Amino acid sequence: MDTHLHHEEKHLRSSNFLTDIVIGMSDGLTVPFALAAGLSGAVSSNTIIVVAGIAEIAAGSIAMGLGGYLAGKTELDHYETELKREYSEVENIPEKEKEEVKTFFANIGLSKDMQDKAAEEISMDKKQWVDFMMKYELGLDKPDPKRATKSALNIGLSYAAGGLVPLSPYIFIDTPLDALKISAVLTLLSLFVFGFFKSRITGINPWLGALRVTLIGALAAGAAFGVAKLFQL
Amino acid sequence: MDTHLHHEEKHLRSSNFLTDIVIGMSDGLTVPFALAAGLSGAVSSNTIIVVAGIAEIAAGSIAMGLGGYLAGKTELDHYETELKREYSEVENIPEKEKEEVKTFFANIGLSKDMQDKAAEEISMDKKQWVDFMMKYELGLDKPDPKRATKSALNIGLSYAAGGLVPLSPYIFIDTPLDALKISAVLTLLSLFVFGFFKSRITGINPWLGALRVTLIGALAAGAAFGVAKLFQL
Repeated sequence: MDTHLHHEEKHLRSSNFLTDIVIGMSDGLTVPFALAAGLSGAVSSNTIIVVAGIAEIAAGSIAMGLGGYLAGKTELDHYETELKREYSEVENIPEKEKEEVKTFFANIGLSKDMQDKAAEEISMDKKQWVDFMMKYELGLDKPDPKRATKSALNIGLSYAAGGLVPLSPYIFIDTPLDALKISAVLTLLSLFVFGFFKSRITGINPWLGALRVTLIGALAAGAAFGVAKLFQL
Repeated sequence: MDTHLHHEEKHLRSSNFLTDIVIGMSDGLTVPFALAAGLSGAVSSNTIIVVAGIAEIAAGSIAMGLGGYLAGKTELDHYETELKREYSEVENIPEKEKEEVKTFFANIGLSKDMQDKAAEEISMDKKQWVDFMMKYELGLDKPDPKRATKSALNIGLSYAAGGLVPLSPYIFIDTPLDALKISAVLTLLSLFVFGFFKSRITGINPWLGALRVTLIGALAAGAAFGVAKLFQL
């Protein structure tokens, strides 16, 4: 049942993919950057920062990737559980279910007479009736079964790609504080560009959005740096 | 406009809060655990692991918390932009908008005659018409304006709370590999319990869900440990 108009369906599909990239990339840029920045204030060798950074990227991309996979899988399981329940309700308590259809039409503003007629028409076909209940009583869209796997890959790879940006200066430069300067410039620039395009996609003022995303990265790194200095023995 | 039935509204509200806690907590348990595990394979002092862990928790909770805040804020901005556009469309191209209402009713299975009558009734009141378009053409629910701030706090605090579990053994025990054993037991147990309740809430088989979540944590930690050993100089 395609009740959204066509152009909107397209919008929703692309935004799933983009949401995954945005989630993975923004955390991948921010968290390894902040971790490396924090350690720069606490240790004197870049080796330990690179090892910690790589461990963090491996951990983060797997956790986020599998997290994305699980989220997709859970959504699918949930949909199928509810679908079975709706079929059994339409079978066993049709009058109560018909009342729920009428309530929907009452809430969108149809007259009493129209509510009854519309509920009669909807409930003539069982599949149509259940599809209606799933979408408009429960607010559930049928999830794409392949989406869980795609989502996992997109998020995980974006996280890893994002994480290599702040970490790379520590590989080529010897002292932590020197590497931190280049890492900060590279990462904050990337966050700005990333935030700009992310905002354009979601229809927000892109300059404001870019500033917001950059500020989060700077704040997280600053906090990590301060906290690590505080706990340094 | 409350078109979802009452019990479902309640379900959706609690699941927003739970989603935040679940997002924050599962990443908070998983990523600092995996980072500490990775470093345990690469360094000989727990001090550096505690400093890195605390830096990561500070960075992660700020990045995720502000990330949650931004996501909520973006949703609100997006809703308001679309709301203005719908009001102007209903004003300027009412015939086209009425066609879209009819298309909606055609897709859910109403007869041609009912589509026309229902579209007439909906479009009699401009606010009702726009609310209908927002929700059923665009699939947008009015976001709670306070939600962005609440979401930020919930996610950030859950991340920090989760992160202290795997890190605590490294504070009280001297050698990394000994601390890792206790950290692994504590964290995997927490992930199991957490995964169990998370699955119960989302209506999934709780034992299967608990296993899934625990497995992600173990895999992320294992990968971080392996990768850190590989890159260790």
